[in-house]
Amino acid sequence: MLREDERLDYLLAEDMRIIQSPSVFAFSLDAVLLANFVYVPIQKGNLVDLCTGNGVIPLLLSKRTRGKIIGVEIQEKIYDMAKRSVQYNGLEGQIEMIHGDIKDMPACLGHSKFDVVTCNPPYFPTPNQEEINKNEHFAIARHEIYCTLEDVIRVSSQLLKQGGKAAFVHRPERLLDIVTLMRQYRLEPKRLRFIYPKEGKEANTILIEGIKDGNKGLKILPPLIVYEQNGEYTSELKYILYGE
Amino acid sequence: MLREDERLDYLLAEDMRIIQSPSVFAFSLDAVLLANFVYVPIQKGNLVDLCTGNGVIPLLLSKRTRGKIIGVEIQEKIYDMAKRSVQYNGLEGQIEMIHGDIKDMPACLGHSKFDVVTCNPPYFPTPNQEEINKNEHFAIARHEIYCTLEDVIRVSSQLLKQGGKAAFVHRPERLLDIVTLMRQYRLEPKRLRFIYPKEGKEANTILIEGIKDGNKGLKILPPLIVYEQNGEYTSELKYILYGE
Repeated sequence: MLREDERLDYLLAEDMRIIQSPSVFAFSLDAVLLANFVYVPIQKGNLVDLCTGNGVIPLLLSKRTRGKIIGVEIQEKIYDMAKRSVQYNGLEGQIEMIHGDIKDMPACLGHSKFDVVTCNPPYFPTPNQEEINKNEHFAIARHEIYCTLEDVIRVSSQLLKQGGKAAFVHRPERLLDIVTLMRQYRLEPKRLRFIYPKEGKEANTILIEGIKDGNKGLKILPPLIVYEQNGEYTSELKYILYGE
Repeated sequence: MLREDERLDYLLAEDMRIIQSPSVFAFSLDAVLLANFVYVPIQKGNLVDLCTGNGVIPLLLSKRTRGKIIGVEIQEKIYDMAKRSVQYNGLEGQIEMIHGDIKDMPACLGHSKFDVVTCNPPYFPTPNQEEINKNEHFAIARHEIYCTLEDVIRVSSQLLKQGGKAAFVHRPERLLDIVTLMRQYRLEPKRLRFIYPKEGKEANTILIEGIKDGNKGLKILPPLIVYEQNGEYTSELKYILYGE
């Protein structure tokens, strides 16, 4: 089941397990926050997670919806980890992992077929060769090597039905680019939440959800603080992470 | 000194006084928050407050800068209150009130002459005739009768020097319009702060500052919560309002 330096970590207290590897890919808090933030239809629907990595978002979403969930990952080694995690949790009936480029997905999966698209994309511009040489897996997950922010937003819009929802997590520095691109690709921003590492600090993460061809009207949700002053997770974070 | 139903209220604990009238104009918390939020040069500079109302922002800014401050108000009765408040506080040497339309100010005051522009503009679209008939003073202060958001942002940009700062307070529903218009008129958004009425509630106010021809790079400042759960002002609000 496990290869090389992979390990089987817990997800949501002890509800699920996920395969990770310190040298290839481990999920981030941002992905967990996105899976918690996004609107999902409870009983049915089609959901797709772009740049899914080791599949943490589809795994978490499977606890919130009975809909079908697809994860798309371009790196074969990481896609393979995601696929084995789905198997380990017995979720092959609900979650399908696809090894491919998100830019090919509208052609592969069809236009306007999805109710929900999520994506925790690479945050940073293309790195130099040295960074890529150091660890190609990390470089691809973190830098806009295979997909740019515009690719993510354009593809999300193409995949979504009218009225479908796209949710992204990103850095505040890109907020204006994100909202501009979302409007350009007919994803009207509706819900925006800022994540602050501690009280009194600037936000370091944003969660944003838009509706395809939605009406104007943006809500700014309550701030989410990650750590107490003493370094412990806040009670809201504990609830999101462990359900307690 | 006082006319009709006017009263002389305290500003910043007992440091200053301001003329208000329940039937004509009273300043809002939003104006106080904007005066506290905006960057100001301490020693010198030219500042202008558009849609100044009874002059609360120029009065508060005079405590933070030795620069010259102009306030512009289109309603003569309210302009007159502002002017008398400046006199009462002995600030005629620092603050000048102008009775006029902000759209005429670039022609009157000159292009690219100011270091700082502030504005707490009307928040709502044009009202129906009934609302205007009820209280014309309130209607003009609250609704986009004499100036639209685009007027405010265009005029602010025209008045500012390169590198000068524009700061606005508005409603979150208009955030995307504001940032789009700011970029259109060369005011790059740099600092954004959300005001939440209470912990766990959605934001109801935004403070945003841009730099004319500034570089990209938006910071999301820590959230500002107005009330404790028991209805008292939070300690940060008390500090802003009373300096204690």
